[in-house]
Amino acid sequence: MTIRRSIHLAKRPAGLPDNDCWELRETPVPVPGTGEVLVRVEYISLDPAMRGWINEGRSYIDPVNIGDVMRAGGVGEVIASQDASFNPGDKVAGTLNVQTHAIIAAKDLQKIDPAIAPLPRFLGGLGMPGMTAYFGLLDVGAYKPGDVVVVSGASGAVGALVGQIAKLKGSRVVGIAGGKDKCDYCVNDLGFDACIDYKSENVLKKLREQCPGGMDIYFDNVGGEILEACLANLKRGARIVICGAVSQYNNMAAMHGPRNYIQLLINRARMEGFVVFDYAKRYGEAQRDIASWMAAGEVKFKEDVQEGIARFPDVLRMLFTGENFGKLVLKL
Amino acid sequence: MTIRRSIHLAKRPAGLPDNDCWELRETPVPVPGTGEVLVRVEYISLDPAMRGWINEGRSYIDPVNIGDVMRAGGVGEVIASQDASFNPGDKVAGTLNVQTHAIIAAKDLQKIDPAIAPLPRFLGGLGMPGMTAYFGLLDVGAYKPGDVVVVSGASGAVGALVGQIAKLKGSRVVGIAGGKDKCDYCVNDLGFDACIDYKSENVLKKLREQCPGGMDIYFDNVGGEILEACLANLKRGARIVICGAVSQYNNMAAMHGPRNYIQLLINRARMEGFVVFDYAKRYGEAQRDIASWMAAGEVKFKEDVQEGIARFPDVLRMLFTGENFGKLVLKL
Repeated sequence: MTIRRSIHLAKRPAGLPDNDCWELRETPVPVPGTGEVLVRVEYISLDPAMRGWINEGRSYIDPVNIGDVMRAGGVGEVIASQDASFNPGDKVAGTLNVQTHAIIAAKDLQKIDPAIAPLPRFLGGLGMPGMTAYFGLLDVGAYKPGDVVVVSGASGAVGALVGQIAKLKGSRVVGIAGGKDKCDYCVNDLGFDACIDYKSENVLKKLREQCPGGMDIYFDNVGGEILEACLANLKRGARIVICGAVSQYNNMAAMHGPRNYIQLLINRARMEGFVVFDYAKRYGEAQRDIASWMAAGEVKFKEDVQEGIARFPDVLRMLFTGENFGKLVLKL
Repeated sequence: MTIRRSIHLAKRPAGLPDNDCWELRETPVPVPGTGEVLVRVEYISLDPAMRGWINEGRSYIDPVNIGDVMRAGGVGEVIASQDASFNPGDKVAGTLNVQTHAIIAAKDLQKIDPAIAPLPRFLGGLGMPGMTAYFGLLDVGAYKPGDVVVVSGASGAVGALVGQIAKLKGSRVVGIAGGKDKCDYCVNDLGFDACIDYKSENVLKKLREQCPGGMDIYFDNVGGEILEACLANLKRGARIVICGAVSQYNNMAAMHGPRNYIQLLINRARMEGFVVFDYAKRYGEAQRDIASWMAAGEVKFKEDVQEGIARFPDVLRMLFTGENFGKLVLKL
């Protein structure tokens, strides 16, 4: 009998989720019912949004309940199927959760082609982060060729793609990231025009230097003081895309609102939030574009692959301490 | 010789502008040069935006400098003209400033027809506040018939018109104002569906009762905690129109940002600022609509007429303490 290992939510965190919030369980691998598929999960995706899913109360999605297996996107291989559309050996992606073996309805599973990219990429550039970057920049940000684009979390899965898409469309792109290595990567490997190290530089002052006329689009992954620095450097008619607020997720009670939001009035600017799931019908369009840019060598991806399901609590925290570099995935 | 009385900025205020910020001067009435008109100023408009104009540094408009006559919109009568397009006796509107007599270039002056409305109305419903309400609601707010609309500063010049336009287009309209008299006025005289008294009621709770499914548009004149209460009650795809932040203007250093702005993400909503001057080319369209609603008795206006140029410092403060009721004007 094979054992399934799974990570369950043991209690709701206050602040950064510590080890006590999680419980590793071992149970027999279940058998798929009619219309279901059994998947051996190979990689799961770690995303800042996970922090919101374990808060009580409904946000844009139901919360993970105490005792539930933690929700996660994943990729893996079909090992048993009770549905005609999947066969053992197929590589698949879906909400497979933090567990070594997942039972999932066939309708909720997508086949992926491992010949076009390594598996973890289907959790990054070709997965949710890729969709988020694409629709956030082009649709929510109402991108126009020549726009000056600033993106925070610049070396992360979403930020790196936002910057590269804007670059290949002809923009001046300035990233904001934490640490010299990440900034060097954005400029030297991804081709950003500049990258500001918020850990050692004055973001407000550097933005004035790097975008002397202000920015047209700020793609915000972090919130907090970096959002304020960008609000203070807008061009007239600018768009701020609210994709996340990773600096604030562990501190919701004392959440820091942008004190200078009235810059939106002075600059006739807007700040708009979105949830990528709303674009599900258009994912194909984004995937075709991203795959063609990838094939042409115009966009690069970096995965940060950690190993071992038992390390999930530590690896999740890396997202909020800035320790990861590139799209963070966990190999189970 | 006739004397001109004028109010000058004597020093920049910290917080609420006190009497020491102003100086009343008396000088001879000047003589218009070629292309100029001399206007006897009858009424000036008092607007929350004035607080921003007397801060140092450029906002969407140059600041009033120390020693300058205070900027204000006004209406009055031409008493001498060196331009063929104006004659003594004409009633006019323009940036006449806080003074009994203004010299102004003919190109910066508009003729008004006193037969269609009392003079102060050209500073309110047919003036900047009217234009602000019209374009803010319909254009920036992307108004759609049936939208649930919430407006703060509801009994003020802008708020009252926002609510009435939304009502005549078929919306449910909920106002937010300070005090029972203002709220009663919004409901009984202006036809709002409800009005929340922020001085005696819990705005967050009352909004949940009055807009059980949330709001589509929040027209924000005040900022602060009322903005946060509205952010917490948005419908999916909602639009927040940032028209002002009168609760915050005297406290810019410790400006309170909306701590729950991440609701924009959860609700796929946006928050957008605007400056009414950008719509100058379309003022005619708005004035035609508002005049026809006025003629049909579909919109009402209330002016709060104070008297005496020397009272300007006191009357200006009424805007920020909520003492005025209706469009605040000063009869000189």
